[in-house]
Amino acid sequence: MAADGLKDMLGRVSLTPVARARSILLEELAAVPLKTRKCTLPEALDRVLSSTILSPENLPKHPRSTMDGFAVRAADTFGASSSMPCYLEIDGDVAMGQMPEGEVTQGKCFRIATGGLLPKGSDAVVMFEHTIPVDGKMIEVVKSVGVGINLIDCGEDIEKDSPALTKGHLLRPQDLGLLAGLGLSELTVYEKPTVGILSTGDEIVPWSESPPPGKIRDINSITLSGLCRRLGARVTDYGIVTDSEETFFATVEQATRENSVVLFSGGSSVGMRDLGERVIEKLGNPGILVHGVALKPGKPIIIGLSNGCAIFGLPGHPVSAMVCFEFFVEPALRLLSGIPDPDKTLKPAVAALLDRNINSAAGRLDLVRVRLEEQENGPPLAVPVLGKSGSISTLSRAHGYFLIEEASQGLNKGTTVQVHLLL
Amino acid sequence: MAADGLKDMLGRVSLTPVARARSILLEELAAVPLKTRKCTLPEALDRVLSSTILSPENLPKHPRSTMDGFAVRAADTFGASSSMPCYLEIDGDVAMGQMPEGEVTQGKCFRIATGGLLPKGSDAVVMFEHTIPVDGKMIEVVKSVGVGINLIDCGEDIEKDSPALTKGHLLRPQDLGLLAGLGLSELTVYEKPTVGILSTGDEIVPWSESPPPGKIRDINSITLSGLCRRLGARVTDYGIVTDSEETFFATVEQATRENSVVLFSGGSSVGMRDLGERVIEKLGNPGILVHGVALKPGKPIIIGLSNGCAIFGLPGHPVSAMVCFEFFVEPALRLLSGIPDPDKTLKPAVAALLDRNINSAAGRLDLVRVRLEEQENGPPLAVPVLGKSGSISTLSRAHGYFLIEEASQGLNKGTTVQVHLLL
Repeated sequence: MAADGLKDMLGRVSLTPVARARSILLEELAAVPLKTRKCTLPEALDRVLSSTILSPENLPKHPRSTMDGFAVRAADTFGASSSMPCYLEIDGDVAMGQMPEGEVTQGKCFRIATGGLLPKGSDAVVMFEHTIPVDGKMIEVVKSVGVGINLIDCGEDIEKDSPALTKGHLLRPQDLGLLAGLGLSELTVYEKPTVGILSTGDEIVPWSESPPPGKIRDINSITLSGLCRRLGARVTDYGIVTDSEETFFATVEQATRENSVVLFSGGSSVGMRDLGERVIEKLGNPGILVHGVALKPGKPIIIGLSNGCAIFGLPGHPVSAMVCFEFFVEPALRLLSGIPDPDKTLKPAVAALLDRNINSAAGRLDLVRVRLEEQENGPPLAVPVLGKSGSISTLSRAHGYFLIEEASQGLNKGTTVQVHLLL
Repeated sequence: MAADGLKDMLGRVSLTPVARARSILLEELAAVPLKTRKCTLPEALDRVLSSTILSPENLPKHPRSTMDGFAVRAADTFGASSSMPCYLEIDGDVAMGQMPEGEVTQGKCFRIATGGLLPKGSDAVVMFEHTIPVDGKMIEVVKSVGVGINLIDCGEDIEKDSPALTKGHLLRPQDLGLLAGLGLSELTVYEKPTVGILSTGDEIVPWSESPPPGKIRDINSITLSGLCRRLGARVTDYGIVTDSEETFFATVEQATRENSVVLFSGGSSVGMRDLGERVIEKLGNPGILVHGVALKPGKPIIIGLSNGCAIFGLPGHPVSAMVCFEFFVEPALRLLSGIPDPDKTLKPAVAALLDRNINSAAGRLDLVRVRLEEQENGPPLAVPVLGKSGSISTLSRAHGYFLIEEASQGLNKGTTVQVHLLL
């Protein structure tokens, strides 16, 4: 890739292409052992299975009707039509929630409601709508049914001893439903990652305070914390650390001992970047993995790993910090949640038409923030939200972003772009 | 629309088209008054603002550098280039986090780091990379800058008294960042909706129990509860209610008094559908809004409203219940969370190629569950997950679904479909 050989203008670091930076990170992180825990079914929502679950039984256990109608022997209905109905005698009723008594014999049927168990002898259900009552004891069937029609067979949903869900599966509401159907009330899942967040910079004060002249409120810690919380991570805020190397090192070191991921932000200045680099190097094992990526905004990110804790030195500009989260921290948190291949997570998008020409430097992945504007006909318009990467309001005004690939030098007005929503 | 005049085969109810059913529901619900509460900034994540917030101050309050370099008077650099550099005297340093002392006068500059406040007299920043040190007191500037370059101006991110975020805005992590930047540590937001869930049917036992012959475990309550919890709703489980009208009515009535939304499921049988209908009619004011929609799966849904509580009688089949949640309950919960126009929520999707021909009945919206299979080149394949709507495993195996519109009678193999992920 063109970006591979890039240096920044001081010649200090070569920028790593985004895809390569991410695979370096994820490969290193994949070796970190994950903890597991037991939990109840409701607690398992949005957690990841740490082992494959084999179905302990057939679901359903017995064939059940999926329609209101009559349980029949399919062969008895063959050839039936409105002009040539067949006649069946009602020989019983299936009571809901009970094993049906008796047996459906030739020329006979049982009344059955949706969810009722098929009585012995029957192998299909004729819908109520396809019958005409003759009297209280006899029906006309006006449409034939084949074997297995209008019923769900024993084990049709899931068979005993087959894998119900596999290791690494993220448990969505429907997956809890499946496990509930199988009676699995306790599961073993991966622990959620824990994240320590700190902000750096002598110019930063907590957002709850009124900044004296020259200082500004901390924006990144609450944004990053929200992004982590949405992924189910437990967040500890280590507050604002001054630019002193000693304090900074001590706090990062403590945070790496107490968490699976540490984020520090601020330090867009050369001095702070160097400080972040020195601290990760000092923590060591293996230390810095990536320093600087071919991404705009987000270039000055530092990624490290120290004793199994992933460390991200994020740019101080709020937009850059959030972009780096999206590209690097989020897949890392997914991996540490137990998802085996987070880089393959499907990213849904909204197709939109670019409303102007956009230039981009080759060799760099460009992220363009956009608002989507509905149009009368066709896809929405993607309208770039202009503004500096220090401007948090641009992210608030944006519905999402699209990417301009490394190989491209720009996109023309009217191009269809895939907009990833910042929901 | 074709579906408007449809009756089911017994001629009992006309099916309402999905879009019309949803607009009837949302229009009625829009009149329900919503409660608000105060909360701290971190608590406000994923809640909705109940009033527009005007910015109490300019953000930033003072112009700040967005680069490491030198604060200059732009006019001093005009015409500067590598072959014709201009010379500036370093007259001071901007200390991080402090109001700069002194003033940049003609022919002079101050050293400044990213985030530093621009000193009086300066109106642009020359990047470090575009300068060459002559000695400790003098630099060569090899590239000219215009006024306002490499800085973020006072109020550029957001201006005092302009709307920072408007009423009805869902607070995402980046929005909390913006509010933190403005020092807004307490907000007024809408209360989250509360949901009461009950399951009906004499054949259902709690999922934590081992069902005796003829009975099955409850699947819907845990799936529906998970879907509600993901939207931030507080869920109360009213357990399993038998098919007795008296008990059923009493429980639904209690649940409507205690919640903003009530979901009951089960009752796919004609008898239970009728019972659900009678109960909602009995609760009254205004009672039933929609009974039966032109949607597959999901047709037999009943939607009602009673004294400001939305009541959904969902089909008993797990797949149908989840589809009805997606189409009707989710937008209702969003509206009751304070989002003014949930029907316009952007639905991101993954474009995929259909791997076979699919038929569909005209006049009905068909939802087709699919797995997505990666291909070497181009978009993924959409492979329909076949199975009955009583089969919860089909939802577990599906990555998402696509829709076949009412007017269509089917789609051909190779058609590009927009797959909405069931993440």
